[in-house]
Amino acid sequence: MYVDPATLKRYEGDKWFAAAQPDAVALPRSTESVARILQFAYRHRIPVTARGAGHGYVGGCVPVKGGIVLSLERMNRILEINADDFVAVVQAGVVTADLQEAVEARRLFYPPDPASRKESFIGGNIATNAGGPRCLKYGVTRDYVLGLEVVLADGTVVRVGGRTHKNKTGFDFPRLFAGSEGMLGIITAATLKLLPLPPYRACLAIGFPAMRRAVRALHAILRAGFLPCALELADAFTLAAAYNRTRSERLRGCRAHLIVELDGQKQSVLSEVRQIERIVRRERPLFIERGMGARQCEAVWQIRREFSYSLRDTGLTKLNEDIVVPRSRLEDLFRFTSRLQRKYGFPVACFGHAGDGNIHTNIMVDYTRRGAVRRADAALDELFRQVVAWGGSITGEHGIGLAKRAWWPLAVSPEVRRLHRTVKEALDPRRLLNPGKFL
Amino acid sequence: MYVDPATLKRYEGDKWFAAAQPDAVALPRSTESVARILQFAYRHRIPVTARGAGHGYVGGCVPVKGGIVLSLERMNRILEINADDFVAVVQAGVVTADLQEAVEARRLFYPPDPASRKESFIGGNIATNAGGPRCLKYGVTRDYVLGLEVVLADGTVVRVGGRTHKNKTGFDFPRLFAGSEGMLGIITAATLKLLPLPPYRACLAIGFPAMRRAVRALHAILRAGFLPCALELADAFTLAAAYNRTRSERLRGCRAHLIVELDGQKQSVLSEVRQIERIVRRERPLFIERGMGARQCEAVWQIRREFSYSLRDTGLTKLNEDIVVPRSRLEDLFRFTSRLQRKYGFPVACFGHAGDGNIHTNIMVDYTRRGAVRRADAALDELFRQVVAWGGSITGEHGIGLAKRAWWPLAVSPEVRRLHRTVKEALDPRRLLNPGKFL
Repeated sequence: MYVDPATLKRYEGDKWFAAAQPDAVALPRSTESVARILQFAYRHRIPVTARGAGHGYVGGCVPVKGGIVLSLERMNRILEINADDFVAVVQAGVVTADLQEAVEARRLFYPPDPASRKESFIGGNIATNAGGPRCLKYGVTRDYVLGLEVVLADGTVVRVGGRTHKNKTGFDFPRLFAGSEGMLGIITAATLKLLPLPPYRACLAIGFPAMRRAVRALHAILRAGFLPCALELADAFTLAAAYNRTRSERLRGCRAHLIVELDGQKQSVLSEVRQIERIVRRERPLFIERGMGARQCEAVWQIRREFSYSLRDTGLTKLNEDIVVPRSRLEDLFRFTSRLQRKYGFPVACFGHAGDGNIHTNIMVDYTRRGAVRRADAALDELFRQVVAWGGSITGEHGIGLAKRAWWPLAVSPEVRRLHRTVKEALDPRRLLNPGKFL
Repeated sequence: MYVDPATLKRYEGDKWFAAAQPDAVALPRSTESVARILQFAYRHRIPVTARGAGHGYVGGCVPVKGGIVLSLERMNRILEINADDFVAVVQAGVVTADLQEAVEARRLFYPPDPASRKESFIGGNIATNAGGPRCLKYGVTRDYVLGLEVVLADGTVVRVGGRTHKNKTGFDFPRLFAGSEGMLGIITAATLKLLPLPPYRACLAIGFPAMRRAVRALHAILRAGFLPCALELADAFTLAAAYNRTRSERLRGCRAHLIVELDGQKQSVLSEVRQIERIVRRERPLFIERGMGARQCEAVWQIRREFSYSLRDTGLTKLNEDIVVPRSRLEDLFRFTSRLQRKYGFPVACFGHAGDGNIHTNIMVDYTRRGAVRRADAALDELFRQVVAWGGSITGEHGIGLAKRAWWPLAVSPEVRRLHRTVKEALDPRRLLNPGKFL
């Protein structure tokens, strides 16, 4: 356990702005150590906040009540990759992209692809049930969790689930712990489901003169019976910022941008790309760029990454809200955010996983201006209220953590909040695991 | 509430042999009624056992402690099918196949396909997390549950989850209730995720002279990067029984039978069927039958259904055990069941969802013979012990219920059993919901 100021400082927060120093930092190397730390903490009623790579966006691992930050960073071994069982067994501190590389070298596939996958840990991905563009076709992190090793609040080690791709033995504890944000137990290892690696990928990047046409194209693709890996949209503000950064002539006059990614057998993908092109052309796009094969696909996704960088270039603070709307509300959402922009005077940049309605809505705030904090909060509040009114969700990928705690009562009913507390109290009666968050 | 002997008799069991009469049967038409019944039962400490269509295979809805059987059969309305949001909202008593037909008419797709789908209810499918052949590609029932309306033990109505395809708001209660076998709450309605309906399907039915070759073909298909909808295997005993029933010359001398189903865009499926044929031919099959398009596919699946009927024709009692082994153990499993057959003198017929290692192992018992009960139990015990030793699961689709209660302590550790009891006690402190089962 470390208690020196420099270490305590390093473990005070994640990518969100909130920070709180822990009283001590533990960097265990084994499940047995995690169990002993939790036994100790349980006996002395010391809060324990689990931490992955610290790449969360909602302050989920900020130790607001002090106590111990338990980082899984030293538990970073891939324990097994089995190409017959299509299973990987990993410790919680394995970097997601490292696992993906290791399994792809054996023609296996771990689909979940959060933007942070080169830094974030599998354990953190599971604790927050991370998503990503490919989740449209492949589902989110929890869909790949076959089994978990979890240390409970009192230090008991449980192994829930197993290593078979189907399993109906008892309650679905792997999925109760997945996405529980460190509040029900600490995940130390996971058995993950793998798929056969699709041998080929292709992308289309399509520019439209109006968002309406992009949304219509998206619906038409799905209605034709396609379930692409990814359907990613970006709005006019995002594209204007990207133009300022890249000076790409293509993006000039472009008011909406759609990326379609397909994977599978090469011949199938080639013929499906042609079919999708035909569908998309009906909406008279400004341009269609093709990325055939993994390398060219990466180039297309590079454009997508530029969107993020170009928003950063604006010098404004980006409040990245991972809201989700029912797919029929996509256009309404874009219209609503333009209105929000005019009303509050903040630029609002929307882009993201439109295929599943999960649009990252970035409210761009200049905190040097007077009243910015209050207006930003009001804008967020209006956004979340509208999303909930549409039957949407205030978070599709990042979780509640601290950042969305204020809107937790808006998002779920008193009965559902009580249900959360009931389960929380049963598993963590002393309220030691990641306290001070949304429960 | 009904208390007449004829009604009580009708609600005493499912497809398994156990039966117990309830004291009363409730057939509510609304969630409010379900809530009132549970409030009443809670106050008077009366057990309540929820019941779908009664098509379970493990006695899961047998009211072993008497009390009230609460059947969802009158709550059978499809409340909404939304082709833009790709969502269906249904009451628990909707027959699964009815939902599938209704959504397919609108070119939408609800993939889970338990064998009983023409009789079983969506609510029962969710409470048992039902599977089926297509789950290899598409996942099981819980993967399609976006939101649930659940009545808790004390009559509180909660709506957990929502209608968006992604949702990270709080703990994953939809999946805790899915597969909980009526022990944590009673599911009254569900919001289900739909997919675009794949426009085309094709099947290959392949006969092999040896199981080893069929298993090798299966592994080769996956290794080539294919994830078919279904990969179904049947063993020699099953095929011999099917030959006796159908006199199909093809099945004579056939020692293993593999069905491969693909779906997607027509051109893609056509080219993939050709590729898979090439892969399979390397294992020198006896024959390859093609089923192109939905109608011909149904004919191929009809063969598969004949396997079940032909086992019934033997006049023996079929103990259908839905065990799962890691995929690398498929051949070991078939070898093991032959040994079991010789040791105990029971025929053992194996067929099922080999793609995910979920093989229905049918021990065929002649209960008129002396000592049959004891020997059948011993054979089951040996089977389950071996499955667990391989890292497999004693149930992949049917659940624990009564039938597998004896092997529950074999399947999970004391710590995991305690975890189950902790959550059960928190949500059902009076132990009224489906009592007498595995907890």
